[in-house]
Amino acid sequence: MPYVNIKITREGATSEQKAALIKGVTDLLVTVLDKNPATTFVVIDEVAFEDWGVGGLPVEEYRKQLKAKS
Amino acid sequence: MPYVNIKITREGATSEQKAALIKGVTDLLVTVLDKNPATTFVVIDEVAFEDWGVGGLPVEEYRKQLKAKS
Amino acid sequence: MPYVNIKITREGATSEQKAALIKGVTDLLVTVLDKNPATTFVVIDEVAFEDWGVGGLPVEEYRKQLKAKS
Amino acid sequence: MPYVNIKITREGATSEQKAALIKGVTDLLVTVLDKNPATTFVVIDEVAFEDWGVGGLPVEEYRKQLKAKS
Amino acid sequence: MPYVNIKITREGATSEQKAALIKGVTDLLVTVLDKNPATTFVVIDEVAFEDWGVGGLPVEEYRKQLKAKS
Amino acid sequence: MPYVNIKITREGATSEQKAALIKGVTDLLVTVLDKNPATTFVVIDEVAFEDWGVGGLPVEEYRKQLKAKS
Repeated sequence: MPYVNIKITREGATSEQKAALIKGVTDLLVTVLDKNPATTFVVIDEVAFEDWGVGGLPVEEYRKQLKAKS
Repeated sequence: MPYVNIKITREGATSEQKAALIKGVTDLLVTVLDKNPATTFVVIDEVAFEDWGVGGLPVEEYRKQLKAKS
Repeated sequence: MPYVNIKITREGATSEQKAALIKGVTDLLVTVLDKNPATTFVVIDEVAFEDWGVGGLPVEEYRKQLKAKS
Repeated sequence: MPYVNIKITREGATSEQKAALIKGVTDLLVTVLDKNPATTFVVIDEVAFEDWGVGGLPVEEYRKQLKAKS
Repeated sequence: MPYVNIKITREGATSEQKAALIKGVTDLLVTVLDKNPATTFVVIDEVAFEDWGVGGLPVEEYRKQLKAKS
Repeated sequence: MPYVNIKITREGATSEQKAALIKGVTDLLVTVLDKNPATTFVVIDEVAFEDWGVGGLPVEEYRKQLKAKS
């Protein structure tokens, strides 16, 4: 009975893409660990840009700096 | 000083129901483990249907299939 | 299909006490929100004292200071 | 830069199986959402039987009851 | 490659304050544990008052009671 | 009343370093958001190498590959 939580930045993932993540992760747990899909939960969290930091910066700022450097 | 996180699908839980969850979980931790309510946190997350998967499907799809089978 | 995570400091909770937490939280979700117990997950994490901070201090240190003040 | 947390009951998942989960989830995020693997984190938590509840019971107890009923 | 999740009540934290949290936590992990900022993630969750409980009450109710007592 | 969870790979963080993380994060929340330290929780999780993935690989494997490339 696995529980999987996927956090991604909010940038337009569609319902179809989310359904693909749910199916893909569940299939993976069935294949690798023989888990029962009926008791496999997947919860997706979309996180606003200003709420996600990397490199000490909010993610949008971070991407700008990466681009400027390249 | 317990920390409890409750994740439920977003389907209309009222403020009163949330208050009942907060009170019930806190009372439980006091009764079972003699915890101090003043340092017991409860955080409730409501999750949209398309963000919660079970049986390899978004929850709404899953419920439809269960119904169709029964 | 709720998912509940309970984090407590590791200080000797017994299997019986954990079972009481699992039963109590599940019953609460059934009573308050009419959830199905068969798809209600409860996960308990016990956290070592040095890994739990409050008031800016590891919890053991914090309790000593509270005691000294009282 | 996704972050994925996988919680499973502790029942002997090998390092190879864990590596397969890590690879599978990362590939999925690349395929479905075009994420960068270098900033995709996967964290696996194994949870002891007595710390995982379903149906209001610790998981081992729950499985026994399911078996008895079938 | 640390992952940090900060949960606060939703009461008007600005983008600048969030950026300060992201920078502060990342600097701390660099200073204390020599972590690489480029692989340090910080995710901030703002939680509505009715979804955060303490002392067995939703946080707003709890604050009112504290005030009334003082 | 913030709740902060810090996940790091298990590679020998000392009690002193953990106390420094707890103090640093708490001070940061006081400085930036004027939070009350007495209701600020910090929970640290150390994660075994085989349970942390990045770049589609367990972290140790990933570091080896980075080194080999450089």
